[in-house]
Amino acid sequence: MQKNAIKIFSPATIANVSCGFDVIGMALERPVDEIILRKSSHSGIRILNIHGARLSTRPDKNVVGVVLYTMLNQLPNIKYGLEVEIFKNIQPGSGIGSSAASAAGAAVGANLLLGDRFTTTELVKIAMEGERFASGIAHADNVAPAIMGGFTLVRSYHPLDLVELHVPKNLWATVLHPKIEIKTSEAREILKKKVLMSDAIKQWGNVGALIAGLYQENYELISRSLEDVIVEPVRSILIPSFYKLKMECKKAGALGGSISGSGPSVFMLSCGKAKAQYVAKCMDEIYAKLGIDYTIYVSPINSQGIQWEWITE
Amino acid sequence: MQKNAIKIFSPATIANVSCGFDVIGMALERPVDEIILRKSSHSGIRILNIHGARLSTRPDKNVVGVVLYTMLNQLPNIKYGLEVEIFKNIQPGSGIGSSAASAAGAAVGANLLLGDRFTTTELVKIAMEGERFASGIAHADNVAPAIMGGFTLVRSYHPLDLVELHVPKNLWATVLHPKIEIKTSEAREILKKKVLMSDAIKQWGNVGALIAGLYQENYELISRSLEDVIVEPVRSILIPSFYKLKMECKKAGALGGSISGSGPSVFMLSCGKAKAQYVAKCMDEIYAKLGIDYTIYVSPINSQGIQWEWITE
Repeated sequence: MQKNAIKIFSPATIANVSCGFDVIGMALERPVDEIILRKSSHSGIRILNIHGARLSTRPDKNVVGVVLYTMLNQLPNIKYGLEVEIFKNIQPGSGIGSSAASAAGAAVGANLLLGDRFTTTELVKIAMEGERFASGIAHADNVAPAIMGGFTLVRSYHPLDLVELHVPKNLWATVLHPKIEIKTSEAREILKKKVLMSDAIKQWGNVGALIAGLYQENYELISRSLEDVIVEPVRSILIPSFYKLKMECKKAGALGGSISGSGPSVFMLSCGKAKAQYVAKCMDEIYAKLGIDYTIYVSPINSQGIQWEWITE
Repeated sequence: MQKNAIKIFSPATIANVSCGFDVIGMALERPVDEIILRKSSHSGIRILNIHGARLSTRPDKNVVGVVLYTMLNQLPNIKYGLEVEIFKNIQPGSGIGSSAASAAGAAVGANLLLGDRFTTTELVKIAMEGERFASGIAHADNVAPAIMGGFTLVRSYHPLDLVELHVPKNLWATVLHPKIEIKTSEAREILKKKVLMSDAIKQWGNVGALIAGLYQENYELISRSLEDVIVEPVRSILIPSFYKLKMECKKAGALGGSISGSGPSVFMLSCGKAKAQYVAKCMDEIYAKLGIDYTIYVSPINSQGIQWEWITE
């Protein structure tokens, strides 16, 4: 089989998993972006089509293009070009890793097409350049789980040190995406530069317990640990009815949750599909009354990360 | 067998395990305090002897006595008294849980003598009153690992939520106790009330990675995660040649380490007994030149916690 074209399935991801602000991310099974990458006899990068979102098809103005340029700059001997078609199912600005899905998908897809030349950590680094283009910050906590699957922890950036965490079998996510705009840069600006030592200690106690809970598959411990005393109290003001939503979802059986990324999406984790669906119903009942458009997703944790199929043409 | 007397073996513990300031503690196999508790026909509490340390034998002025009073106040129907003998092998002020060994040992011993009436968490709470008496703060990160063994995480104090962590098989500790005085209260005062958000994020990334490393038995990950960017830089000034010691121990093969509790002891973790012994040699070479008295301990992690034997008399 000639490996000249590949279709990439790049999942939504949740960064800032509660107490794990800036360090813990996780991958969902849906929604999923699709990216088709083809070798082309024309040199350079061409984005032929973007379906499902209004984004520039100019490669230097598009996350996918930026990532492909970053990769090709490291491979000066590649003689052919790349053509791209993008099917966005993860809405830009949703806070569930839309730019990360594009960036990570482009990195993984191009790497496979170009002969599997990069390690996972290298691919994350390349995809981070897409994040830098999208938000001004080359953060890893969406692209790492998109590429690696499951829960990932970014221990450090210098050097980049990524840790794959254990995923309990029966963990599901329910995600509410209110169709309001929150810019990542603004969500970042409202955070304080300093935090109370006592709050920081609580936070790292919760981070430690959350990770122990994942390894122990102890859902009660996970539930108790899903507590963010530092970022959620500040950012939640940007999300309509956040605390009501959280309280009612927990009453409905959710283990807990928080803001996805820098919002506006809100995620809740549950033990099992039935509870996750019931949490979705609860979210629906609250948001149906608010007069804001919204979408709700129910998904298991995606333990595989990006998937692909070769295209025979 | 009449269960009228018991001998308790209560181990040294290390609190503030590097990045896990105030939340992660661990138990050592040595040194170990011994406490003998006997039922007595005289009502009340009597401390007959304390060997190995100059501490008050007045029960209201001694950690063991305070803990026993705390327990007996919760059991108003106990008709007999308690007699205590204490053999201190863990030096008061060493920073390796001397008061905690007394407090936890008294709680576990009296509970067994009185018919096993308390849960582990209740015993930790009772032992914490001994810590409150000793240092003014009812902290749990020494008494919890003393009672539960291994590595423990204090997720929260209100309510008290203790998490037992996985202990890698081959993890050893080397502890240097420089015979200088650092008061816990003073070591606490030099800490800042606020910390940089960026430092706090690094810290909880390291806490998360350390716990993942323990579960994965990934010694390299444990090594990279033993980094405290918040407390160690401030407190290490109290300990002679701290950074030289740390650097040389890591060169000698230690995974990493930090200040034990609020000092003055310094601990290093290693993979295997031979490396831990080599680290001890390295510590010895550096401290032999300083003109300060010191003791060095080499110990595996104690996964059992407090042990005991009944005494037949």
